[in-house]
Amino acid sequence: MNALNVAEYMQTLGLQARQASAAMARAEAATRNQALRALAALLRASTADLQAANARDIDRAVAAGLAAPMVDRLKLTPKVIETVAQGCEQLAAMADVIGDIVGMRQQPSGIRVGQMRVPIGVFGMIYESRPNVTIEAASLSIKSGNACILRGGSEAIDSNKALAQLVRQALASAGLPAEAVQLVQTTDREAVGQLIAMPAFVDVIIPRGGKGLIERISRDAKVPVIKHLDGNCHVYVDAPCDLEMAVKVTDNAKTQKYSPCNAIEGLLVARAVAPQFLPRIAAVFEAKGVEMRCDADARTIIGEARTRAATEQDWSEEYLAPIISIKVVAGLDEAIAHINHYGSHHTDAILTRDHMHAQRFLREVDSASVMVNTSPRFADGFEYGLGAEIGISTDKFHARGPVGIEGLTSLKWVVLGNGELRS
Amino acid sequence: MNALNVAEYMQTLGLQARQASAAMARAEAATRNQALRALAALLRASTADLQAANARDIDRAVAAGLAAPMVDRLKLTPKVIETVAQGCEQLAAMADVIGDIVGMRQQPSGIRVGQMRVPIGVFGMIYESRPNVTIEAASLSIKSGNACILRGGSEAIDSNKALAQLVRQALASAGLPAEAVQLVQTTDREAVGQLIAMPAFVDVIIPRGGKGLIERISRDAKVPVIKHLDGNCHVYVDAPCDLEMAVKVTDNAKTQKYSPCNAIEGLLVARAVAPQFLPRIAAVFEAKGVEMRCDADARTIIGEARTRAATEQDWSEEYLAPIISIKVVAGLDEAIAHINHYGSHHTDAILTRDHMHAQRFLREVDSASVMVNTSPRFADGFEYGLGAEIGISTDKFHARGPVGIEGLTSLKWVVLGNGELRS
Repeated sequence: MNALNVAEYMQTLGLQARQASAAMARAEAATRNQALRALAALLRASTADLQAANARDIDRAVAAGLAAPMVDRLKLTPKVIETVAQGCEQLAAMADVIGDIVGMRQQPSGIRVGQMRVPIGVFGMIYESRPNVTIEAASLSIKSGNACILRGGSEAIDSNKALAQLVRQALASAGLPAEAVQLVQTTDREAVGQLIAMPAFVDVIIPRGGKGLIERISRDAKVPVIKHLDGNCHVYVDAPCDLEMAVKVTDNAKTQKYSPCNAIEGLLVARAVAPQFLPRIAAVFEAKGVEMRCDADARTIIGEARTRAATEQDWSEEYLAPIISIKVVAGLDEAIAHINHYGSHHTDAILTRDHMHAQRFLREVDSASVMVNTSPRFADGFEYGLGAEIGISTDKFHARGPVGIEGLTSLKWVVLGNGELRS
Repeated sequence: MNALNVAEYMQTLGLQARQASAAMARAEAATRNQALRALAALLRASTADLQAANARDIDRAVAAGLAAPMVDRLKLTPKVIETVAQGCEQLAAMADVIGDIVGMRQQPSGIRVGQMRVPIGVFGMIYESRPNVTIEAASLSIKSGNACILRGGSEAIDSNKALAQLVRQALASAGLPAEAVQLVQTTDREAVGQLIAMPAFVDVIIPRGGKGLIERISRDAKVPVIKHLDGNCHVYVDAPCDLEMAVKVTDNAKTQKYSPCNAIEGLLVARAVAPQFLPRIAAVFEAKGVEMRCDADARTIIGEARTRAATEQDWSEEYLAPIISIKVVAGLDEAIAHINHYGSHHTDAILTRDHMHAQRFLREVDSASVMVNTSPRFADGFEYGLGAEIGISTDKFHARGPVGIEGLTSLKWVVLGNGELRS
């Protein structure tokens, strides 16, 4: 396709999505759930075909010399297929939120006013490598009564096409428009530029991928973007604090996995407990090979030989690796100021026994998730009971933090009267 | 100021607003309410001074040959001052929403997860003529724990400066930062361009004014905009329907006032009731001098001499005048399709006795407010019980419809644990 053809093609997808979104918004919950269960059954029945399509992507990736972890992420194993099939069934079993009416109250004029939850319309999703995201996004779109346009990575195009074909079949089998979930069939990069600039057809964009990709999309998009750029998360060990618990939670927050955006990158310790706490956590980090980049006070306590000096840059860094920055702070005020200044407004926790400190931390730390006495690793749609997660937002407009089905909906006002007139 | 100076000046306002917003978010409800009551008292005590400043604006406007209705909108009469003072007191008396925690539930892991309502941070407001908007925006900002930067019309600059000075005094008297509400002191147009493009300092822009202004701001803004461009609202008279009520509500929806965005521009009538209903409403409109632009069927019923033929353009038009478009439709499906196609997603009402039709209209009409058996003129923050209205949004992201205090807040996740670890 040339650029003109890509633009026309994307406009066609957009128009079809917009039309399909009206049918999806009208559809009963039972119908949408039927499509989800049909999709689960089709995924299981098509495991061999899906693996055949996936093998073409894998072969291309290997031939292109892609690194082994990247090739691994591409793989549609029977286990991955079973997992996404179960995900569809779990969504089908969840209560429906579309059509819920909340807060209906009678007003002095006599009218009753409330808010109804409705689908947002059409979302565009831009993602890389893992083909299972195609099913995760499609199933969330169906459950939430939206239409979507999916743009996966070019490296997974054969897998994604095979998956998208199953989604079309599942939708059609339930009497829903097959165009409610459309995969962009071209790998032309121009398609992304078009997708993010069609406000008439696409209501919101959800990018998943590297920071560079998300920055570009946010800059150029003509519609809202649900996104987070960084996960520079913190644990602050307060005084007084249960040090036994603090060691375990801090360890979990940093080392349970290094790559997720909700793993911590910074550790702040109140001066009053630093001499007791830091040697204990340092022993844990050392045993696991976690590099400690410390301010002068923390280095003095842990020892210069076991640590490196932190630079100003370290306080802002998202390592996603076995490296942690450590700073001794005077107390709560300095901890809150540090997190609000250097953090990424993603997820931050205080470990404390002081109730007033806990309340102030919750109120004053300006992050999407604020926690007391537990691990920032819990910042996740499933752990929060959302039943699903389409992404994480560090913005404050619309959805914030882990975004589930409600983030793909809006509340419209419903007014019921008996002939009342405005005077 | 030259352009460079304006840019520097706006950056300074932005930085000050961001710093003040942290103090506002920390402030107790009682402190913010104290500032609001102090502002009410200062407004009343300064009526003479405010009128003196306002007289300078009025003199300039008259000298410049501004039309009389425009000059009227500029006036800060004792009555207008008393009204905004009362508004401040009403806000002070309202329950506080900041710090509310909703939906706190225990999850399988043991953590408890809920959402806390917090201020959004800093909003920028851009408006024209009426200086009372300065106090409305300032008081909403104080109540919601935000900071704001206000850019009023150049024609009201002296009035706005005098009002903003009172707001500074009121904030300071309650121990809050005076920079929590800042008025842009220059009338240079470049200031607007800067205000809407400082994502580091301003979280959301709320423009009020003509469609051209709002379109420009939406196009150029680098932050979210809470806005509506058009109010092409409808009443659909269904079959069966209480025709007595339908005449009264349709009359109210069109003629109670012509200029508000929630006055209707289009009337749709089900074919089955058109012969009974149209002559009655036509008589009302004729008596009030409302021009009727009709499709062929409506013209036949009402009479060619009393109507004009509607053009395709009429179905999309926001007249804000004694003109209405009238169309006979087959029934509910055509009405919904017409409204979703030609309407502006603002406010639309069905007048019906059929429960199933009412339910479908509420669900399927894609507007910020959908109504049954009452007048679209009720689409208003005060009528909805919000206690205030900062604007109306026809977008689906974040706030939708009349936007009150909650639209200036966001929900962050709050997680309480007892040392739980992610596994």
